[in-house]
Amino acid sequence: MALAHKGLEVETIPWRFSDKELIASSGQAKVPALLHHGKWICDSWTIANYLEEQFPGHPSLFTSAEGRALSFLYSSLGDFQGGQIVRFLLLDIYHHLAEQDKEYFRTSREQRFGMTLEEVVKHREAQLPAFRESLFPLRAVLKKQAFFGGESPLYADYALFGQFQWARCISDFELLASDDPVAHWRTRMLNAFGGLALKAPAY
Amino acid sequence: MALAHKGLEVETIPWRFSDKELIASSGQAKVPALLHHGKWICDSWTIANYLEEQFPGHPSLFTSAEGRALSFLYSSLGDFQGGQIVRFLLLDIYHHLAEQDKEYFRTSREQRFGMTLEEVVKHREAQLPAFRESLFPLRAVLKKQAFFGGESPLYADYALFGQFQWARCISDFELLASDDPVAHWRTRMLNAFGGLALKAPAY
Repeated sequence: MALAHKGLEVETIPWRFSDKELIASSGQAKVPALLHHGKWICDSWTIANYLEEQFPGHPSLFTSAEGRALSFLYSSLGDFQGGQIVRFLLLDIYHHLAEQDKEYFRTSREQRFGMTLEEVVKHREAQLPAFRESLFPLRAVLKKQAFFGGESPLYADYALFGQFQWARCISDFELLASDDPVAHWRTRMLNAFGGLALKAPAY
Repeated sequence: MALAHKGLEVETIPWRFSDKELIASSGQAKVPALLHHGKWICDSWTIANYLEEQFPGHPSLFTSAEGRALSFLYSSLGDFQGGQIVRFLLLDIYHHLAEQDKEYFRTSREQRFGMTLEEVVKHREAQLPAFRESLFPLRAVLKKQAFFGGESPLYADYALFGQFQWARCISDFELLASDDPVAHWRTRMLNAFGGLALKAPAY
Protein backbone atom coordinates (compact mmCIF):
# COMPACT_ATOMS: atom_id res chain seq x y z
CA MET A 1 0.00 0.00 0.00
CA ALA A 2 2.89 2.35 0.81
CA LEU A 3 4.52 1.58 -2.54
CA ALA A 4 1.22 2.23 -4.33
CA HIS A 5 0.83 5.49 -2.39
CA LYS A 6 4.25 6.50 -3.69
CA GLY A 7 3.24 5.43 -7.19
CA LEU A 8 6.11 2.96 -7.39
CA GLU A 9 6.17 -0.22 -9.44
CA VAL A 10 7.32 -3.24 -7.51
CA GLU A 11 7.90 -6.91 -8.17
CA THR A 12 6.50 -9.08 -5.37
CA ILE A 13 7.86 -12.54 -4.65
CA PRO A 14 5.64 -15.21 -3.05
CA TRP A 15 7.34 -16.42 0.11
CA ARG A 16 6.92 -19.21 2.65
CA PHE A 17 7.89 -19.33 6.32
CA SER A 18 10.65 -21.81 5.50
CA ASP A 19 12.08 -19.79 2.59
CA LYS A 20 14.76 -18.36 4.84
CA GLU A 21 17.40 -18.57 2.09
CA LEU A 22 15.47 -16.25 -0.20
CA ILE A 23 15.99 -13.35 2.20
CA ALA A 24 19.14 -14.59 3.95
CA SER A 25 21.25 -11.90 2.31
CA SER A 26 19.09 -9.29 4.07
CA GLY A 27 20.85 -10.30 7.28
CA GLN A 28 17.61 -11.23 9.02
CA ALA A 29 14.77 -13.75 8.65
CA LYS A 30 11.50 -11.80 8.51
CA VAL A 31 9.24 -10.18 5.95
CA PRO A 32 8.50 -7.58 4.76
CA ALA A 33 11.88 -7.14 3.16
CA LEU A 34 12.46 -4.75 0.27
CA LEU A 35 15.34 -5.06 -2.16
CA HIS A 36 16.20 -1.77 -3.85
CA HIS A 37 19.30 -1.28 -6.02
CA GLY A 38 20.96 -4.25 -4.27
CA LYS A 39 20.22 -2.93 -0.79
CA TRP A 40 17.87 -4.67 1.65
CA ILE A 41 15.46 -2.64 3.75
CA CYS A 42 13.49 -4.62 6.34
CA ASP A 43 10.56 -3.93 8.67
CA SER A 44 7.46 -2.00 7.54
CA TRP A 45 8.20 1.23 9.41
CA THR A 46 11.82 1.29 8.26
CA ILE A 47 10.70 0.64 4.69
CA ALA A 48 8.15 3.47 4.86
CA ASN A 49 10.82 5.87 6.08
CA TYR A 50 13.22 4.66 3.39
CA LEU A 51 10.63 5.24 0.65
CA GLU A 52 9.95 8.70 2.02
CA GLU A 53 13.64 9.61 1.90
CA GLN A 54 14.35 8.01 -1.48
CA PHE A 55 11.29 9.38 -3.26
CA PRO A 56 10.67 12.87 -1.88
CA GLY A 57 8.97 14.08 -5.06
CA HIS A 58 6.28 11.40 -4.81
CA PRO A 59 3.13 11.66 -2.65
CA SER A 60 4.20 11.70 0.98
CA LEU A 61 3.26 8.91 3.39
CA PHE A 62 3.50 11.27 6.37
CA THR A 63 3.06 14.78 4.85
CA SER A 64 5.63 16.35 7.21
CA ALA A 65 8.23 15.64 9.90
CA GLU A 66 5.54 16.00 12.56
CA GLY A 67 3.21 13.78 10.56
CA ARG A 68 5.97 11.19 10.49
CA ALA A 69 6.40 11.40 14.28
CA LEU A 70 2.63 11.11 14.81
CA SER A 71 2.48 8.12 12.44
CA PHE A 72 4.93 6.03 14.46
CA LEU A 73 2.27 5.17 17.04
CA TYR A 74 0.06 3.82 14.24
CA SER A 75 2.90 1.53 13.22
CA SER A 76 3.26 0.40 16.81
CA LEU A 77 -0.51 -0.06 17.24
CA GLY A 78 -0.56 -2.11 14.06
CA ASP A 79 2.10 -4.44 15.45
CA PHE A 80 0.18 -4.76 18.72
CA GLN A 81 -3.08 -5.41 16.92
CA GLY A 82 -1.44 -8.05 14.77
CA GLY A 83 -0.47 -9.83 17.96
CA GLN A 84 -4.10 -9.80 19.06
CA ILE A 85 -5.47 -10.92 15.70
CA VAL A 86 -3.10 -13.86 15.40
CA ARG A 87 -4.65 -15.39 18.52
CA PHE A 88 -7.88 -15.83 16.54
CA LEU A 89 -6.34 -17.09 13.33
CA LEU A 90 -3.36 -19.20 14.33
CA LEU A 91 -4.96 -22.48 13.31
CA ASP A 92 -6.29 -21.02 10.05
CA ILE A 93 -2.75 -20.00 9.16
CA TYR A 94 -1.57 -23.53 9.91
CA HIS A 95 -4.20 -25.02 7.62
CA HIS A 96 -3.02 -22.86 4.72
CA LEU A 97 0.64 -23.75 5.06
CA ALA A 98 2.64 -25.83 2.63
CA GLU A 99 3.60 -29.20 4.08
CA GLN A 100 7.25 -28.20 4.53
CA ASP A 101 6.23 -25.25 6.74
CA LYS A 102 3.87 -27.03 9.10
CA GLU A 103 6.29 -28.51 11.59
CA TYR A 104 8.36 -25.30 11.87
CA PHE A 105 5.23 -23.21 12.32
CA ARG A 106 3.63 -25.49 14.91
CA THR A 107 6.81 -25.87 16.95
CA SER A 108 7.81 -22.18 16.96
CA ARG A 109 4.29 -20.86 17.64
CA GLU A 110 3.42 -23.41 20.32
CA GLN A 111 6.63 -22.45 22.08
CA ARG A 112 5.77 -18.73 21.79
CA PHE A 113 2.21 -19.14 23.09
CA GLY A 114 2.97 -21.85 25.62
CA MET A 115 0.11 -24.03 24.36
CA THR A 116 -1.01 -25.91 21.26
CA LEU A 117 -2.32 -24.04 18.22
CA GLU A 118 -5.70 -25.62 18.87
CA GLU A 119 -5.76 -24.33 22.45
CA VAL A 120 -4.85 -20.77 21.39
CA VAL A 121 -7.94 -20.46 19.18
CA LYS A 122 -10.28 -22.72 21.18
CA HIS A 123 -12.24 -19.89 22.82
CA ARG A 124 -12.03 -17.40 19.98
CA GLU A 125 -15.78 -16.93 19.65
CA ALA A 126 -15.95 -16.01 23.34
CA GLN A 127 -12.94 -13.68 22.98
CA LEU A 128 -14.30 -11.88 19.91
CA PRO A 129 -16.48 -9.31 21.77
CA ALA A 130 -13.47 -8.13 23.82
CA PHE A 131 -11.38 -7.76 20.66
CA ARG A 132 -14.11 -5.74 18.97
CA GLU A 133 -14.45 -3.63 22.12
CA SER A 134 -10.70 -2.96 22.05
CA LEU A 135 -11.19 -1.29 18.66
CA PHE A 136 -13.24 1.44 20.33
CA PRO A 137 -10.58 4.15 19.83
CA LEU A 138 -10.28 3.39 16.11
CA ARG A 139 -14.06 3.23 15.75
CA ALA A 140 -14.57 6.63 17.38
CA VAL A 141 -12.24 8.22 14.82
CA LEU A 142 -13.72 6.40 11.85
CA LYS A 143 -17.21 7.58 12.76
CA LYS A 144 -15.99 11.12 12.06
CA GLN A 145 -13.24 10.72 9.46
CA ALA A 146 -12.98 8.63 6.29
CA PHE A 147 -9.35 7.77 7.05
CA PHE A 148 -6.92 8.19 9.95
CA GLY A 149 -5.01 10.54 7.66
CA GLY A 150 -8.19 12.55 7.05
CA GLU A 151 -9.93 12.67 3.68
CA SER A 152 -7.44 10.32 2.08
CA PRO A 153 -5.27 7.52 3.51
CA LEU A 154 -1.73 7.97 4.79
CA TYR A 155 0.83 5.53 6.16
CA ALA A 156 -1.13 5.53 9.43
CA ASP A 157 -3.99 3.85 7.58
CA TYR A 158 -1.75 1.30 5.85
CA ALA A 159 -0.11 0.30 9.14
CA LEU A 160 -3.46 -0.63 10.65
CA PHE A 161 -5.09 -1.93 7.48
CA GLY A 162 -2.25 -4.38 6.86
CA GLN A 163 -3.33 -6.39 9.89
CA PHE A 164 -6.88 -6.73 8.62
CA GLN A 165 -5.63 -7.56 5.14
CA TRP A 166 -3.52 -10.55 6.15
CA ALA A 167 -6.39 -11.68 8.34
CA ARG A 168 -8.84 -11.82 5.42
CA CYS A 169 -6.21 -13.47 3.22
CA ILE A 170 -5.83 -16.40 5.62
CA SER A 171 -9.21 -16.84 7.31
CA ASP A 172 -12.95 -16.55 6.89
CA PHE A 173 -13.31 -15.73 10.60
CA GLU A 174 -15.23 -12.45 10.85
CA LEU A 175 -13.13 -10.22 13.06
CA LEU A 176 -15.39 -7.25 12.35
CA ALA A 177 -19.16 -6.99 12.40
CA SER A 178 -20.38 -5.86 8.97
CA ASP A 179 -21.97 -2.69 10.40
CA ASP A 180 -18.80 -1.63 12.25
CA PRO A 181 -17.35 1.72 11.09
CA VAL A 182 -13.98 -0.07 11.19
CA ALA A 183 -15.34 -2.53 8.60
CA HIS A 184 -16.51 0.38 6.43
CA TRP A 185 -13.03 1.89 6.58
CA ARG A 186 -11.56 -1.52 5.67
CA THR A 187 -13.79 -1.52 2.59
CA ARG A 188 -12.55 1.95 1.64
CA MET A 189 -8.99 0.67 2.02
CA LEU A 190 -9.75 -2.39 -0.09
CA ASN A 191 -11.01 -0.09 -2.84
CA ALA A 192 -8.00 2.24 -2.69
CA PHE A 193 -5.54 2.31 -5.59
CA GLY A 194 -7.99 0.68 -7.98
CA GLY A 195 -8.82 -2.13 -5.58
CA LEU A 196 -5.18 -3.16 -5.07
CA ALA A 197 -5.80 -5.06 -1.82
CA LEU A 198 -8.82 -6.82 -3.35
CA LYS A 199 -6.52 -8.46 -5.91
CA ALA A 200 -4.90 -10.68 -3.28
CA PRO A 201 -6.57 -14.08 -2.85
CA ALA A 202 -8.76 -13.75 0.25
CA TYR A 203 -12.00 -14.65 1.95
CA MET B 1 -1.48 22.06 28.30
CA ALA B 2 -3.08 23.02 24.98
CA LEU B 3 -3.62 26.57 26.22
CA ALA B 4 0.00 26.76 27.38
CA HIS B 5 1.14 25.39 23.99
CA LYS B 6 -0.79 28.23 22.38
CA GLY B 7 0.76 30.69 24.81
CA LEU B 8 -2.65 31.76 26.08
CA GLU B 9 -3.41 33.08 29.54
CA VAL B 10 -6.36 31.42 31.16
CA GLU B 11 -8.28 31.68 34.40
CA THR B 12 -9.06 28.26 35.86
CA ILE B 13 -11.99 27.68 38.20
CA PRO B 14 -11.89 24.86 40.78
CA TRP B 15 -14.91 22.65 40.21
CA ARG B 16 -16.72 19.79 41.96
CA PHE B 17 -18.83 17.00 40.54
CA SER B 18 -21.93 18.57 42.05
CA ASP B 19 -21.21 22.09 40.76
CA LYS B 20 -23.55 21.54 37.83
CA GLU B 21 -24.88 25.11 38.04
CA LEU B 22 -21.45 26.61 37.39
CA ILE B 23 -21.40 25.17 33.86
CA ALA B 24 -25.16 24.88 33.32
CA SER B 25 -25.13 27.68 30.75
CA SER B 26 -22.78 25.57 28.63
CA GLY B 27 -25.80 23.41 27.86
CA GLN B 28 -24.13 20.26 29.18
CA ALA B 29 -22.79 18.90 32.48
CA LYS B 30 -19.17 17.86 31.93
CA VAL B 31 -15.69 19.34 32.13
CA PRO B 32 -13.51 20.47 30.49
CA ALA B 33 -15.57 23.47 29.49
CA LEU B 34 -13.98 26.64 28.14
CA LEU B 35 -15.66 30.02 28.24
CA HIS B 36 -14.33 32.43 25.62
CA HIS B 37 -15.91 35.81 24.85
CA GLY B 38 -19.20 34.55 26.31
CA LYS B 39 -19.20 31.35 24.25
CA TRP B 40 -18.88 27.88 25.77
CA ILE B 41 -16.70 25.27 24.10
CA CYS B 42 -16.84 21.79 25.66
CA ASP B 43 -14.93 18.54 25.26
CA SER B 44 -11.12 18.45 25.01
CA TRP B 45 -10.89 17.65 21.29
CA THR B 46 -13.48 20.30 20.40
CA ILE B 47 -11.62 22.82 22.54
CA ALA B 48 -8.29 21.99 20.86
CA ASN B 49 -9.84 22.51 17.44
CA TYR B 50 -11.44 25.74 18.57
CA LEU B 51 -8.12 27.09 19.85
CA GLU B 52 -6.45 26.13 16.59
CA GLU B 53 -9.04 28.04 14.58
CA GLN B 54 -9.20 31.07 16.85
CA PHE B 55 -5.45 31.49 17.30
CA PRO B 56 -3.86 30.53 14.00
CA GLY B 57 -0.82 32.77 14.56
CA HIS B 58 0.13 30.90 17.75
CA PRO B 59 2.10 27.63 17.87
CA SER B 60 0.00 24.92 16.26
CA LEU B 61 -1.31 21.95 18.24
CA PHE B 62 -1.46 19.81 15.10
CA THR B 63 1.00 21.52 12.67
CA SER B 64 -1.22 20.83 9.62
CA ALA B 65 -4.61 19.54 8.45
CA GLU B 66 -3.13 16.04 8.18
CA GLY B 67 -1.52 16.40 11.60
CA ARG B 68 -4.94 17.28 12.94
CA ALA B 69 -6.48 14.20 11.34
CA LEU B 70 -3.68 11.98 12.70
CA SER B 71 -4.11 13.51 16.17
CA PHE B 72 -7.74 12.52 16.51
CA LEU B 73 -6.83 8.92 17.32
CA TYR B 74 -4.66 10.16 20.18
CA SER B 75 -7.67 11.98 21.58
CA SER B 76 -9.72 8.80 21.24
CA LEU B 77 -6.97 6.66 22.79
CA GLY B 78 -6.76 9.12 25.68
CA ASP B 79 -10.47 8.71 26.35
CA PHE B 80 -10.16 4.93 26.20
CA GLN B 81 -7.15 4.94 28.49
CA GLY B 82 -8.95 7.16 30.96
CA GLY B 83 -11.64 4.50 31.13
CA GLN B 84 -9.00 1.91 31.96
CA ILE B 85 -7.23 4.06 34.54
CA VAL B 86 -10.40 4.94 36.43
CA ARG B 87 -10.86 1.25 37.27
CA PHE B 88 -7.74 1.46 39.40
CA LEU B 89 -8.46 4.79 41.06
CA LEU B 90 -12.21 4.91 41.58
CA LEU B 91 -12.02 4.56 45.34
CA ASP B 92 -9.16 7.06 45.60
CA ILE B 93 -11.31 9.61 43.79
CA TYR B 94 -14.13 8.92 46.25
CA HIS B 95 -11.83 9.51 49.22
CA HIS B 96 -10.86 12.94 47.88
CA LEU B 97 -14.40 14.15 47.31
CA ALA B 98 -16.13 16.85 49.27
CA GLU B 99 -18.93 15.47 51.43
CA GLN B 100 -21.65 16.86 49.17
CA ASP B 101 -20.24 14.95 46.18
CA LYS B 102 -19.93 11.52 47.75
CA GLU B 103 -23.43 10.20 47.37
CA TYR B 104 -23.78 11.41 43.79
CA PHE B 105 -20.42 9.92 42.86
CA ARG B 106 -21.01 6.55 44.53
CA THR B 107 -24.50 6.14 43.10
CA SER B 108 -23.67 7.19 39.53
CA ARG B 109 -20.42 5.19 39.34
CA GLU B 110 -21.76 2.05 40.98
CA GLN B 111 -24.58 2.08 38.46
CA ARG B 112 -22.10 2.55 35.60
CA PHE B 113 -19.79 -0.26 36.72
CA GLY B 114 -22.49 -2.58 38.01
CA MET B 115 -20.67 -3.11 41.32
CA THR B 116 -19.53 -1.19 44.37
CA LEU B 117 -16.57 1.21 44.18
CA GLU B 118 -14.70 -1.16 46.50
CA GLU B 119 -15.32 -4.11 44.18
CA VAL B 120 -14.09 -2.22 41.11
CA VAL B 121 -10.65 -1.62 42.63
CA LYS B 122 -10.42 -4.78 44.74
CA HIS B 123 -8.08 -6.65 42.38
CA ARG B 124 -6.17 -3.67 41.06
CA GLU B 125 -2.76 -5.01 42.02
CA ALA B 126 -3.47 -8.17 40.05
CA GLN B 127 -4.79 -6.13 37.10
CA LEU B 128 -1.81 -3.76 36.99
CA PRO B 129 0.50 -5.96 34.86
CA ALA B 130 -2.15 -6.23 32.13
CA PHE B 131 -2.61 -2.45 32.14
CA ARG B 132 1.11 -1.87 31.84
CA GLU B 133 1.26 -4.47 29.06
CA SER B 134 -1.50 -2.61 27.22
CA LEU B 135 0.80 0.42 27.05
CA PHE B 136 3.16 -1.54 24.78
CA PRO B 137 2.35 0.51 21.66
CA LEU B 138 3.03 3.79 23.47
CA ARG B 139 6.19 2.39 25.01
CA ALA B 140 7.61 1.26 21.67
CA VAL B 141 7.26 4.81 20.32
CA LEU B 142 8.69 6.48 23.43
CA LYS B 143 11.78 4.28 23.28
CA LYS B 144 12.61 6.00 19.99
CA GLN B 145 11.06 9.47 20.27
CA ALA B 146 10.98 12.04 23.07
CA PHE B 147 7.33 12.87 22.33
CA PHE B 148 4.53 11.49 20.16
CA GLY B 149 4.80 14.73 18.21
CA GLY B 150 8.54 14.16 17.73
CA GLU B 151 11.18 16.34 19.35
CA SER B 152 8.61 18.51 21.09
CA PRO B 153 5.08 17.79 22.32
CA LEU B 154 1.92 18.32 20.29
CA TYR B 155 -1.76 17.88 21.11
CA ALA B 156 -1.26 14.12 20.70
CA ASP B 157 0.97 14.22 23.76
CA TYR B 158 -1.44 16.33 25.82
CA ALA B 159 -4.37 14.02 25.04
CA LEU B 160 -2.53 11.02 26.50
CA PHE B 161 -0.68 12.88 29.25
CA GLY B 162 -3.92 14.32 30.65
CA GLN B 163 -4.96 10.86 31.78
CA PHE B 164 -1.76 10.32 33.71
CA GLN B 165 -1.97 13.82 35.16
CA TRP B 166 -5.41 13.40 36.75
CA ALA B 167 -4.30 10.00 37.98
CA ARG B 168 -1.34 11.45 39.89
CA CYS B 169 -3.49 14.31 41.21
CA ILE B 170 -5.93 11.90 42.84
CA SER B 171 -3.93 8.83 43.81
CA ASP B 172 -0.57 7.56 44.98
CA PHE B 173 -1.17 4.27 43.14
CA GLU B 174 1.79 3.69 40.83
CA LEU B 175 0.30 3.05 37.42
CA LEU B 176 3.73 3.13 35.81
CA ALA B 177 6.96 1.43 36.85
CA SER B 178 9.63 4.06 37.42
CA ASP B 179 11.89 2.62 34.69
CA ASP B 180 9.11 2.55 32.08
CA PRO B 181 9.83 4.77 29.04
CA VAL B 182 6.21 5.91 29.41
CA ALA B 183 7.11 7.19 32.91
CA HIS B 184 10.13 9.04 31.47
CA TRP B 185 7.88 10.70 28.90
CA ARG B 186 5.46 11.62 31.69
CA THR B 187 8.34 13.32 33.48
CA ARG B 188 9.21 15.28 30.34
CA MET B 189 5.57 16.33 30.10
CA LEU B 190 5.54 17.38 33.77
CA ASN B 191 8.56 19.58 33.09
CA ALA B 192 7.08 21.18 29.96
CA PHE B 193 6.07 24.85 30.03
CA GLY B 194 8.17 25.59 33.09
CA GLY B 195 6.77 22.67 35.05
CA LEU B 196 3.13 23.69 34.54
CA ALA B 197 1.67 20.26 35.35
CA LEU B 198 3.89 19.96 38.43
CA LYS B 199 2.15 22.97 39.94
CA ALA B 200 -1.09 21.07 40.45
CA PRO B 201 -1.39 19.38 43.88
CA ALA B 202 -0.48 15.74 43.31
CA TYR B 203 1.21 12.62 44.63
